[in-house]
Amino acid sequence: MKVILIISDGIADQPIKELGGKTPLQMANKPAMDEIARTGVNGIMDPIAPGITPGSDTAHLAILGYDPYKKYEGRGAFEALGAGLEVKTKDICFRGNIATVDNKFTVLDRRAGRIRDDAEELVEAVSRIKLNFFPDIQVVIKHTIEHRCAIVLKGPHLTRMISDTDPHKSNHQINESQPLNDSSEALRTTHIVNLLTREIHRILDTHPINMKRRAKGLLPANAILMRGAGVVPKVRPITDIYGIKALAIAAGALYKGVCKSVGMDLINVQGATGDYETNTIAKAKAAVENLPRYDFILIHIKATDNASHDMDVKKKIKMIEKVDKLVKYILQNTDPDKVIIAMTADHTTSTESGEHTGDSVPVSIRGKTVRVDSVQRYSEIDCAQGGLGRIRGVNLLPILLDYAGKSKKFGE
Amino acid sequence: MKVILIISDGIADQPIKELGGKTPLQMANKPAMDEIARTGVNGIMDPIAPGITPGSDTAHLAILGYDPYKKYEGRGAFEALGAGLEVKTKDICFRGNIATVDNKFTVLDRRAGRIRDDAEELVEAVSRIKLNFFPDIQVVIKHTIEHRCAIVLKGPHLTRMISDTDPHKSNHQINESQPLNDSSEALRTTHIVNLLTREIHRILDTHPINMKRRAKGLLPANAILMRGAGVVPKVRPITDIYGIKALAIAAGALYKGVCKSVGMDLINVQGATGDYETNTIAKAKAAVENLPRYDFILIHIKATDNASHDMDVKKKIKMIEKVDKLVKYILQNTDPDKVIIAMTADHTTSTESGEHTGDSVPVSIRGKTVRVDSVQRYSEIDCAQGGLGRIRGVNLLPILLDYAGKSKKFGE
Repeated sequence: MKVILIISDGIADQPIKELGGKTPLQMANKPAMDEIARTGVNGIMDPIAPGITPGSDTAHLAILGYDPYKKYEGRGAFEALGAGLEVKTKDICFRGNIATVDNKFTVLDRRAGRIRDDAEELVEAVSRIKLNFFPDIQVVIKHTIEHRCAIVLKGPHLTRMISDTDPHKSNHQINESQPLNDSSEALRTTHIVNLLTREIHRILDTHPINMKRRAKGLLPANAILMRGAGVVPKVRPITDIYGIKALAIAAGALYKGVCKSVGMDLINVQGATGDYETNTIAKAKAAVENLPRYDFILIHIKATDNASHDMDVKKKIKMIEKVDKLVKYILQNTDPDKVIIAMTADHTTSTESGEHTGDSVPVSIRGKTVRVDSVQRYSEIDCAQGGLGRIRGVNLLPILLDYAGKSKKFGE
Repeated sequence: MKVILIISDGIADQPIKELGGKTPLQMANKPAMDEIARTGVNGIMDPIAPGITPGSDTAHLAILGYDPYKKYEGRGAFEALGAGLEVKTKDICFRGNIATVDNKFTVLDRRAGRIRDDAEELVEAVSRIKLNFFPDIQVVIKHTIEHRCAIVLKGPHLTRMISDTDPHKSNHQINESQPLNDSSEALRTTHIVNLLTREIHRILDTHPINMKRRAKGLLPANAILMRGAGVVPKVRPITDIYGIKALAIAAGALYKGVCKSVGMDLINVQGATGDYETNTIAKAKAAVENLPRYDFILIHIKATDNASHDMDVKKKIKMIEKVDKLVKYILQNTDPDKVIIAMTADHTTSTESGEHTGDSVPVSIRGKTVRVDSVQRYSEIDCAQGGLGRIRGVNLLPILLDYAGKSKKFGE
């Protein structure tokens, strides 16, 4: 049997005042999701551990079976891998924001006026930037989506143990990166990152595109804020651990990167954008089409989380109902005797606060080998009554592969 | 208070098509088991961890409180201990199958035509076999039940890190045992095992009993297939950890061996056979009779698992109903104020696939100190609604001994 796992980012929520204390999942019209809950087994899952608020990176690492406390080494490498950059074991990677700064390096806009069209060309102008004094360091920068990019440093004596240059809010100066330990590598890496920040600004500030943007009254995109220094986690790939072929269908670079780092294949789906406009049916079709070639397919949908970060309850409900169409397509186009379908979230995102929380998330799993419980609907509250009880993120993949008959016996 | 724990091997199941998606536990008529569920606390248990398929050996080790990832060192020593052989710390032990091979060592039947009557005498003929070239090695072989035996190698420079000679299917040649690491001990142990395999064949092939078997048209039992090389796990006995006297009532050598390895006493019960014909009432009586002398009695019943491996749903239901008589006897002959009664399985065995799975198993516990929940029946689905929630195998014994008032306080 095969497994399709649908992860709706931040789909779980806390009680929402304008919904009378209900959650968006309780209020949305989602017949396909409810069918999976009704015909399957349900439970709640702590992506990392009870009360621990996960990042998207640590949550996905856990859901793919790795203890993030042992294996997580920063977010940067996932972004770089997801951007399609080649990342070697010792490369130090960062997420980048294309931003607007004044001539004192004060951040005026962390997203350069939510730049889109010009971003790729501007990043291209610094994509292979050389640093004086550090001839042994190679820099690779690649645009991903919107105002985002990935940065990779290659060379000897580097470490991820340095702080972000991104001040994480506007009207603050770009931070000087600081070493996070006493090593000479950390000091050296901060020197490189701080020099890189100045060099990028020097090139971008006077770039013709930014001249045009200023002329049009747009904010110039004249800096790159770096954060989440990381290296590729040292893990045995899931393909090897479980002897499976695995595919990820995701738009966001981070999610693609986590999946790639654990040995999963990636495909790009036309119209899958990672935002509200994403073509969920195209993703569902891609999953069904690829099923003959894979044992495990993960579909990631980002915009449920976006709606919570935007604190937009209506949009969250609408996006849940859009994901339901994806679930319906998969239900209608797969053989229940041959495919295990599972749904969950990587974490809860509160639409009241706009932030991730450490709440558990609902899980529903349907398939021939699954013991059916009495839960009728897919929600944070309903699933807590289910036959799975309360599991951890790291338990999910072993459970799914066991239902699919792909568990290896430990002992005799 | 005292504890009686009834482990029905593989009694838990996945949904069965011919039962309309129900499990044998849901369909069986088992008033005594349901009484324990109704008057006790219930839950589901991952013998090892969620989604991990246990062997019978690792599962029992876990249920007796030991993390099998840390303590398991192969199955062989349990078989040898269970067979009543003396096993020292460094002895290397194997499970053996008495088999039929042709003169090219191709396995014609892994069980020599399910040999029974002649097995003991044939094994006796090789029970103290001497190996040329290895005068410092002592070999001990003992028949257990049916076509099974246990083999112990004693001597210096041996290791369990070698592969099986058992090809695990018919029409394949006996494997040459291979070293599983680079040590000289592993190489030496494979030489011994491979020589032993040839010597056993040389002696058995021309043994008078096999001559008679051939004359009768029966398959000769002319080889012993070796598997599961193991040593006794290095554990502190449960008798010592908890300060209790503990007894196991089991027929299968493996189960007796695991229990013995953790310090439990064993008794042989007349009519307890480990198969469908086993006298469950005799086992129940033995438990009740021995209760004055023990704090903890484990009763193991094997045939529920056999029915699943045979993919025989009717037999599984019948066997569950037979176990129910055992439970009834214990209920009727013990004082509920003085005895905690618990029921569980060591793992799920799917009667659809005939294989162990990584599903959780139901647990029900009854006794004066136990908080009663609202579960009415003993089954995989019902128990998931119980007051115990989802526990691990290693949690069970501490929970039971705590109900019995035998838990030691940690801290003050």
